[in-house]
Amino acid sequence: MYIGKNIYTKEKVAIKLEERKNSQIPLEQEVLVIESENMSAYVHIARPDTINHPVVAAKYEVRGAVTIRAHELEKQLQESKKKGVPSGLPFDYVTYCNIGNPQKLKQKPVTFVRQVCALMEYPELIEKAPQAFAPDAIARAKRLLDAGFLTGTYSFSKGHEIIRQDIAEFIAARDGVPCDPDTIYCTDGASAGVRHMLDLLIRQDEKVGIMTPTPQYPLYASLLTLHNGCQVGYPLNEETGWSLVPAELDRCYEEAAAKGIQCRGLVVINPNNPTGQVLSIECMQDVIRFCIKRRIILFADEVYQENLYEDGAKFTSFRKVAYEMGEDVWKRIEIASFHSISKGFLGECGHRGGYVQLDNFLPDVQAMLYKMESIALCSNTMGQLVMDCMVNPPKPGDASYELYQKEKNDIIQSLKRRAVKLSGAINSLEGFTCSKPSGAMYLFPSVVLPPKAIEAAKAANIPADTFYSLALLEATGICVVPGSGFGQREGTYHFRITFLPPEDQIDSVVESIKKFHAEFVAKYK
Amino acid sequence: MYIGKNIYTKEKVAIKLEERKNSQIPLEQEVLVIESENMSAYVHIARPDTINHPVVAAKYEVRGAVTIRAHELEKQLQESKKKGVPSGLPFDYVTYCNIGNPQKLKQKPVTFVRQVCALMEYPELIEKAPQAFAPDAIARAKRLLDAGFLTGTYSFSKGHEIIRQDIAEFIAARDGVPCDPDTIYCTDGASAGVRHMLDLLIRQDEKVGIMTPTPQYPLYASLLTLHNGCQVGYPLNEETGWSLVPAELDRCYEEAAAKGIQCRGLVVINPNNPTGQVLSIECMQDVIRFCIKRRIILFADEVYQENLYEDGAKFTSFRKVAYEMGEDVWKRIEIASFHSISKGFLGECGHRGGYVQLDNFLPDVQAMLYKMESIALCSNTMGQLVMDCMVNPPKPGDASYELYQKEKNDIIQSLKRRAVKLSGAINSLEGFTCSKPSGAMYLFPSVVLPPKAIEAAKAANIPADTFYSLALLEATGICVVPGSGFGQREGTYHFRITFLPPEDQIDSVVESIKKFHAEFVAKYK
Repeated sequence: MYIGKNIYTKEKVAIKLEERKNSQIPLEQEVLVIESENMSAYVHIARPDTINHPVVAAKYEVRGAVTIRAHELEKQLQESKKKGVPSGLPFDYVTYCNIGNPQKLKQKPVTFVRQVCALMEYPELIEKAPQAFAPDAIARAKRLLDAGFLTGTYSFSKGHEIIRQDIAEFIAARDGVPCDPDTIYCTDGASAGVRHMLDLLIRQDEKVGIMTPTPQYPLYASLLTLHNGCQVGYPLNEETGWSLVPAELDRCYEEAAAKGIQCRGLVVINPNNPTGQVLSIECMQDVIRFCIKRRIILFADEVYQENLYEDGAKFTSFRKVAYEMGEDVWKRIEIASFHSISKGFLGECGHRGGYVQLDNFLPDVQAMLYKMESIALCSNTMGQLVMDCMVNPPKPGDASYELYQKEKNDIIQSLKRRAVKLSGAINSLEGFTCSKPSGAMYLFPSVVLPPKAIEAAKAANIPADTFYSLALLEATGICVVPGSGFGQREGTYHFRITFLPPEDQIDSVVESIKKFHAEFVAKYK
Repeated sequence: MYIGKNIYTKEKVAIKLEERKNSQIPLEQEVLVIESENMSAYVHIARPDTINHPVVAAKYEVRGAVTIRAHELEKQLQESKKKGVPSGLPFDYVTYCNIGNPQKLKQKPVTFVRQVCALMEYPELIEKAPQAFAPDAIARAKRLLDAGFLTGTYSFSKGHEIIRQDIAEFIAARDGVPCDPDTIYCTDGASAGVRHMLDLLIRQDEKVGIMTPTPQYPLYASLLTLHNGCQVGYPLNEETGWSLVPAELDRCYEEAAAKGIQCRGLVVINPNNPTGQVLSIECMQDVIRFCIKRRIILFADEVYQENLYEDGAKFTSFRKVAYEMGEDVWKRIEIASFHSISKGFLGECGHRGGYVQLDNFLPDVQAMLYKMESIALCSNTMGQLVMDCMVNPPKPGDASYELYQKEKNDIIQSLKRRAVKLSGAINSLEGFTCSKPSGAMYLFPSVVLPPKAIEAAKAANIPADTFYSLALLEATGICVVPGSGFGQREGTYHFRITFLPPEDQIDSVVESIKKFHAEFVAKYK
């Protein structure tokens, strides 16, 4: 590994590196010594032992070992298909249930959004092919062009003015709480917004803690590792459908404080990823009180706000709850709210659009966020454009209104049907327990693994749920994410599975899991 | 500032914070004390004194004080226009010469690129309006769709396979050096690639140095500040047209080493930003020898590779030069090469497309870069798509070929004319010296400032070149970037100005600068 050509084997270089652990000779000189023995040997400069440790340490299970193996299997399938030979695998395609990537699983883009995108990319179409577009899509394109929004130019670093104006109006109308466009920062997906906020808050000269739910979306764990921040997990209660227990926040805060960790941020994901839980207003109020009492900034990850599956469910944002608790509360809490075009019913993941909106942050601190964005120049314009379509959709009377509503409702209703079907089926399997999902795009069932399977995993030196997920993948082509990537109570095993496969595939997904699980249990009985 | 409502004035809180500098009471308790005096007062959690210091310290002059003022003036112009009243300003519009953002200055997008973009955003157009597109644009869209490239899905984190395949073929053909698609990482503009590489290399437990030219593109300085890395500047020689002096690399390396700084990376921008210099092959060979001797990773920032203005000039990449120096060299240097869709003749800044390509990096280290990209999920798909059009343009015989070539040549020739005209005009002004630009998009003239102007700047507590640039902006609406943002020799003053304004505006830009400069010199005589 650590060698460019011949002479030194990987083992020999490893020994050399081991020997020099106690060496007084600086690494650079040592390397030169190694090299001088034969000029054709090259010890690399960038190696796992020389690069930034947190980068080596960071984990991101959503695209971890199981997903990497899934990509290998997919390549194998494609190659055998190309050659016209049997793949030797017990399935014909990989089903990516590891990630909320709806259009990869055949969800169709929303027509209005894509018409506006096409027009903005090639405005000549307004003259050349007006019949191919709805009049309100053309009107939208003209409005944005008139406002100086061009997809090929760097926008203002926070995002183009007209886009942030539209976002602000959407937020204000949704919450009944005023929103200043200058508090909105367009980002390449919500992830980039979270990263910027952690860049801002985590210091290297203090043990800064960020409280995250357990289980949590692995983005937070990996970014916290990269930033040298302290992840302070607070457990969600699986027995009560993964509810957030406010008393646990206090307990975890104090435990962290006892270790010298200063908690500065609290991440709440609502609706939750991976559990699908939606918070009650009372619970949100408790969270807000906790933040005020402990002087903690609230990270409101609300990217699944459109993904609600209970009858009559309506999304309530943290900022709305805080506002309605009265001025003494509202003025005393700093909230960073995140949203995205990747989830909801648009599922426009590839366009990488998102925003972070800040309530009650100091102008001086907001200026720092602006500076961070300006160093990256700006978020991509197409992500901004799709965001504009999302926050400012066709209105009643607009030519696209009915189609837009139909496409939206069809997707949401279909997601709901798939959630119910998949969770019901998984729940019916012996050894599985799966909460009813109220929101988001995932199930996070627990599975009782046979002791012999746990032993086999230990022998293979991988977590038992990864062992199970890999076996599921090899047998069925279904790619899920092991629960250990999200965090789970010691001795329990989970995996996250999206309910995004097309409806006509859900039955076969369920059948495959059922058959696999029976065989797995039988094998390790 | 540090207060939410009434009671405490900004001054009083500032005094409190000053007082507590020597306080033994932890900040959190102190804040509670301040608060308890009146519950309506709120001391913010995120403040310049509590957030991450490097974020506060980072500078990014390209969008710094002068640009912020330019945006204010633009707003003022727009508002007075809306109201139909005179603006009171001595100009009618702001000319943004601060940043390489060609389409903002009326450069037209290349037709083939935008046709493919529109088709990929809304593939129904292939059926609905084929007459609006060139057949090869439709063929390109079909090819990408067939390969499973969808704009709405997360791609593989390194970028979609077919895009990286096309990039690899482009690089291999350009250099006559093989290129493995797996060594290519698509990024949101080249900036994101630079950031990832610094994430990888800079450690908090060592003083890691990255060598950058002086003057340098401020991205490097700001990212190095954010990463707690050490910027080790090596001066370019203004007297010889900003040439890179290899002996200076050794001198600066040794000076840094004496301070305990371990240089791990060397940034070379070729063609150079801001100076426009293009390196000779001999100089590039010296740079490569230096990297090998000192065990330094080469960052080859080659985003301006299409922007060459000398007759018959042809771009040569660092990887090609290293390859042609023979295997003993080629196998002993780690090169990270950066490219972008934002520059060249496309100028597709808003689409945020770029890549970093790694030669001779260990697979284990490449896996870390993959992991970093997967934490951000993937770069935006439209940036990947435009990159594909750039590296795989229409070929002779394709329907779009002639138009593509015409658009390309028109833009490059026009840039060249503007470069010559603007540099000639600036050179003719008294007190100005401006090297002939061989590449890129900028001029970096030096200007002799009257001693009284330097004194006035000192009195205003701003660098003298910022003082000059602000005065230029207020008088003419022309926005440039002060040389202090790039680094310059003590006692010299520069600014960076793009030569991107449309040809019919270049004369008036020249006239405005000439008139302003005469008045400025007269005023401070």
